[in-house]
Amino acid sequence: MPQKTKTVAKKRSIPTKHAPLAKSGKGAPAHEDDVKFMALDIPRGKLSESLTAYFAKCEEKLGYVPNVLRAYGFDTGKLQAFVDYRQELVQNAENLSKLEIEMIATAVSSQNRCFYCITAHGNAVRQLGGPVLGEMMVMNYRAARLDKRQRAMLDFAVKLTTQPWEVEEEDRARLRRAGFNDRDIWDIASVAAFYNMTNRLASATDMRPNSVYHGQAR
Amino acid sequence: MPQKTKTVAKKRSIPTKHAPLAKSGKGAPAHEDDVKFMALDIPRGKLSESLTAYFAKCEEKLGYVPNVLRAYGFDTGKLQAFVDYRQELVQNAENLSKLEIEMIATAVSSQNRCFYCITAHGNAVRQLGGPVLGEMMVMNYRAARLDKRQRAMLDFAVKLTTQPWEVEEEDRARLRRAGFNDRDIWDIASVAAFYNMTNRLASATDMRPNSVYHGQAR
Amino acid sequence: MPQKTKTVAKKRSIPTKHAPLAKSGKGAPAHEDDVKFMALDIPRGKLSESLTAYFAKCEEKLGYVPNVLRAYGFDTGKLQAFVDYRQELVQNAENLSKLEIEMIATAVSSQNRCFYCITAHGNAVRQLGGPVLGEMMVMNYRAARLDKRQRAMLDFAVKLTTQPWEVEEEDRARLRRAGFNDRDIWDIASVAAFYNMTNRLASATDMRPNSVYHGQAR
Amino acid sequence: MPQKTKTVAKKRSIPTKHAPLAKSGKGAPAHEDDVKFMALDIPRGKLSESLTAYFAKCEEKLGYVPNVLRAYGFDTGKLQAFVDYRQELVQNAENLSKLEIEMIATAVSSQNRCFYCITAHGNAVRQLGGPVLGEMMVMNYRAARLDKRQRAMLDFAVKLTTQPWEVEEEDRARLRRAGFNDRDIWDIASVAAFYNMTNRLASATDMRPNSVYHGQAR
Amino acid sequence: MPQKTKTVAKKRSIPTKHAPLAKSGKGAPAHEDDVKFMALDIPRGKLSESLTAYFAKCEEKLGYVPNVLRAYGFDTGKLQAFVDYRQELVQNAENLSKLEIEMIATAVSSQNRCFYCITAHGNAVRQLGGPVLGEMMVMNYRAARLDKRQRAMLDFAVKLTTQPWEVEEEDRARLRRAGFNDRDIWDIASVAAFYNMTNRLASATDMRPNSVYHGQAR
Amino acid sequence: MPQKTKTVAKKRSIPTKHAPLAKSGKGAPAHEDDVKFMALDIPRGKLSESLTAYFAKCEEKLGYVPNVLRAYGFDTGKLQAFVDYRQELVQNAENLSKLEIEMIATAVSSQNRCFYCITAHGNAVRQLGGPVLGEMMVMNYRAARLDKRQRAMLDFAVKLTTQPWEVEEEDRARLRRAGFNDRDIWDIASVAAFYNMTNRLASATDMRPNSVYHGQAR
Repeated sequence: MPQKTKTVAKKRSIPTKHAPLAKSGKGAPAHEDDVKFMALDIPRGKLSESLTAYFAKCEEKLGYVPNVLRAYGFDTGKLQAFVDYRQELVQNAENLSKLEIEMIATAVSSQNRCFYCITAHGNAVRQLGGPVLGEMMVMNYRAARLDKRQRAMLDFAVKLTTQPWEVEEEDRARLRRAGFNDRDIWDIASVAAFYNMTNRLASATDMRPNSVYHGQAR
Repeated sequence: MPQKTKTVAKKRSIPTKHAPLAKSGKGAPAHEDDVKFMALDIPRGKLSESLTAYFAKCEEKLGYVPNVLRAYGFDTGKLQAFVDYRQELVQNAENLSKLEIEMIATAVSSQNRCFYCITAHGNAVRQLGGPVLGEMMVMNYRAARLDKRQRAMLDFAVKLTTQPWEVEEEDRARLRRAGFNDRDIWDIASVAAFYNMTNRLASATDMRPNSVYHGQAR
Repeated sequence: MPQKTKTVAKKRSIPTKHAPLAKSGKGAPAHEDDVKFMALDIPRGKLSESLTAYFAKCEEKLGYVPNVLRAYGFDTGKLQAFVDYRQELVQNAENLSKLEIEMIATAVSSQNRCFYCITAHGNAVRQLGGPVLGEMMVMNYRAARLDKRQRAMLDFAVKLTTQPWEVEEEDRARLRRAGFNDRDIWDIASVAAFYNMTNRLASATDMRPNSVYHGQAR
Repeated sequence: MPQKTKTVAKKRSIPTKHAPLAKSGKGAPAHEDDVKFMALDIPRGKLSESLTAYFAKCEEKLGYVPNVLRAYGFDTGKLQAFVDYRQELVQNAENLSKLEIEMIATAVSSQNRCFYCITAHGNAVRQLGGPVLGEMMVMNYRAARLDKRQRAMLDFAVKLTTQPWEVEEEDRARLRRAGFNDRDIWDIASVAAFYNMTNRLASATDMRPNSVYHGQAR
Repeated sequence: MPQKTKTVAKKRSIPTKHAPLAKSGKGAPAHEDDVKFMALDIPRGKLSESLTAYFAKCEEKLGYVPNVLRAYGFDTGKLQAFVDYRQELVQNAENLSKLEIEMIATAVSSQNRCFYCITAHGNAVRQLGGPVLGEMMVMNYRAARLDKRQRAMLDFAVKLTTQPWEVEEEDRARLRRAGFNDRDIWDIASVAAFYNMTNRLASATDMRPNSVYHGQAR
Repeated sequence: MPQKTKTVAKKRSIPTKHAPLAKSGKGAPAHEDDVKFMALDIPRGKLSESLTAYFAKCEEKLGYVPNVLRAYGFDTGKLQAFVDYRQELVQNAENLSKLEIEMIATAVSSQNRCFYCITAHGNAVRQLGGPVLGEMMVMNYRAARLDKRQRAMLDFAVKLTTQPWEVEEEDRARLRRAGFNDRDIWDIASVAAFYNMTNRLASATDMRPNSVYHGQAR
């Protein structure tokens, strides 16, 4: 197995570049979703040193560890693989902006009505694109007055979510006409596919978003 | 970042334990699906040494590199993350048999009508559970006369695929009544969720299964 | 025609009993949704005196006139009929709390993915039931940990929204078992039916919620 | 509250302009649907004088009171609001013919499979447009050989019924190209939305159409 | 063409046992549906002697030849096979009454929104079971107050129409509990399956029902 | 039973022209699907002489009698009508090749997820068009790189299967533009309609395909 290089490790994003949080979760009385963050009771193993440090950095910078990480964290190998995969497949998209990635994540999660993911990524869209855009991604992305590029991107991601069997060459051609290259198509598909996965893991386990998300960037 | 241990590396499965392949893909005139294995044209980077070795081992043992790996292989980081994630989330399931994992993969992929994944995992079910079971997973898993445990497992995986928003405590309770523990529920959900991801990436890119799969274990 | 009595007039709610608004819309630079609040360009007639007064009271107490009223307001007769009908069919529900009415409105609107109505009624749920409950109604009402009564109420309202042709005696029986009487069933049905109407009028006209809603009661 | 003027009262239509009824309901032995006209048992209040007179006029001119009015009639305020709202939102459509309004009502109700509303409005289409057109609206409006205007009108109304979240500017543009102005779009949407409401109230309460409708205008 | 023996010919039902037709189609000015009865223009071959006689008997007894027979009649072999198959699969049902067969035919056709078949079989239900039952089968069979046997029969037929892939042993068991034996289950399935075929042939060719049906048995 | 003339008997296809079977079913230990080939227990009558001979010829040439014939065979009249109807409606298609008929049969059966029919007709496509084409028809016909004619043919057949109520003149026009005449449209519709019937009869009775099919033409 290839050893992970430092370079890769550095690229892993802790969402610190977001606008300063409006309301910290620190010190607040815990919401039940922060205590019982999933419906499964699984014996918890020991986190690796690097992941322990990662959690500590989250606590320090954000005031909380995202519950999805706590959920995966019963097994350090699974958590590490999740973090790496998300980095590579989602965050390393070449030409998609951070906002565009979060728009896809939210629109996809809205189709699947995943409470965890809509909450977390809707928050990210609000932080990066403003509160009204965030709400539109949550409720009905068609309500947003998007340019041709972003509309084509979301139409593709949503069709891939609801009728993947009908995605064909014409769908890719429309993305190309909207200015995307083939690598971008891979990236859009990767992001949409990734959240179709996390939506289902979250729904299967009744995963709960950190309550602090609800109030941020409003 | 945690260093991958040798132990983990050893657990990574190259599907060699399968029954001897009925027809080798080696030397056969290539099917078009083996040449143009996806609809995207993306500049290809250099594979890491370990992945280069992994590809060589595939060629040696199987006579081919699975096209999904060739597709991801334009970027060594993405491919490595995919291989690791699949190992951790799918193949490290604690109490699910290899056959059960492939049954979930095939039934999920059938719902999403993903040509690549139905082909590849339908083949795996045939290898591990016989040709008729494989065909049932491909066509309609309800046709199989399964025991209570496996039927509950597939009902959960398929509901998670088609209506994830309706998965609730009663669905988990049914799995528990069928003999699964909470860790197993996580594993079933992980496998179903993982293939909901790969189905969509394959459909978005018109990924093509190695043609050799079609004739195996018939 | 019966003359509307003063008593009825007094019952008409201007939503002043809500918790004090976190952020007033007054004086803020207008969001485009507040300017172009629907996609139709219809000649505007003169409002009756009483409705003119009603608008003034909205401005005074809320800082804005809800856009749905401005949209209907091209015709004073239609607006008056809408306000009366909403009063009688929705707000005069006998045993449903204001919160329960808003929960139904939001869950129904979420099924129909109506940007206007999810926004307006999601805000109302937040005001009356707290921010997290509001978000759950917006995203997936099944995520809320409701008592038997409220869950039965929402299941009925949502089924009536998505498959009204399958609502039968057993559905009414379940409401009765959850403690509702026949008048309550009428009221639940009325509220759900009413928002199935407004959702469609809003979607047909691309009606836009007052932007101030987005930030309230977070 | 605005006082309803005589003018408005006069505009309220009792369906007397319809072709002479082929078969009167008067004196006939009652069908069970005329006796038990809804599944809810709600204490009945006193009708206002004007509504009492309205019911008497229905009996005199039609030989029956439409069951939807009897159903609402447990509460005089609700009934009055319903009658007024229907007048303003449906019957006051500016440029839609009575037949077109009933075509929308029937096509919408057919999508929702509402026994009451399909029966009542299918009858009205037969009265105004002939028996075969009525049956087509009931069964599949696409079977009717309509002109471009009426086809666009029904396509819009039906899409608004089944996928309101996908109604966008292009849908309005198609109506405009078919000759409708923005006020007409409001009216088409209002009528479609109104029957999406009554369909659901009727289905929720198992409301039964007056049996006399079935034989009329055949 | 094999010659049908007298025995078979006698079994073939010309719907003469129906209640006397309320309105004959004879002599009436033809409705366009009676002239252009399908959208395909296919060269017409010569009918066999026995089928020519069959058409003559239809004209004599009914005043018209059902348009489905005229449609198939471009090829005498196809028509004969259709008539025989309908006789064997539908009309030779052992324990289903003629009314029950027509109820299944109408409820199935209503799901598929087939103008031809809903019209023809809705008429038959009216003739055999009264006008209101006919309308219920057309609009929503759930509105009919059926006994346990007939409700189970229709639920099975409709599920087989809309989700055949989910029909399993429990569905057959429910029919058995309602008093049906295994031969009856075959017959119910045959009738439902047959009309799923004719619905699609009629929809594909825009087949038009004889206009006389619309007015009968009202 | 009418006696089939030699002429008709000769036209009836026993699939002997297929490529030599890779694996005979003869002598092999029976799979459970070959023993209990449907879930209904119906008293079996006596087969006509000609059908007895037909079964014998199947045994001799194929090594088995197709289970669908054994299922119908409880009643010689039904079986004969089925065989004749299939001959006339499916096999006598004028300009469709045998392969095209089987492609329609398989794509339709795949939509309905019918284990029996996908298996039997998927096998036929493999025999006539190669193993990969067969698998594509089973899994997702859109994965096949078809010419305009065959793609239009399958799109029509699948739409007729899933949304027959939306098939209109434009759908027929597309077939004509792809080179089909009106008789061909009838034939395509007949084949698609026929398998919509058999799919449902097979699903209703849990009919099981001969196990030998699974291994053929791989």
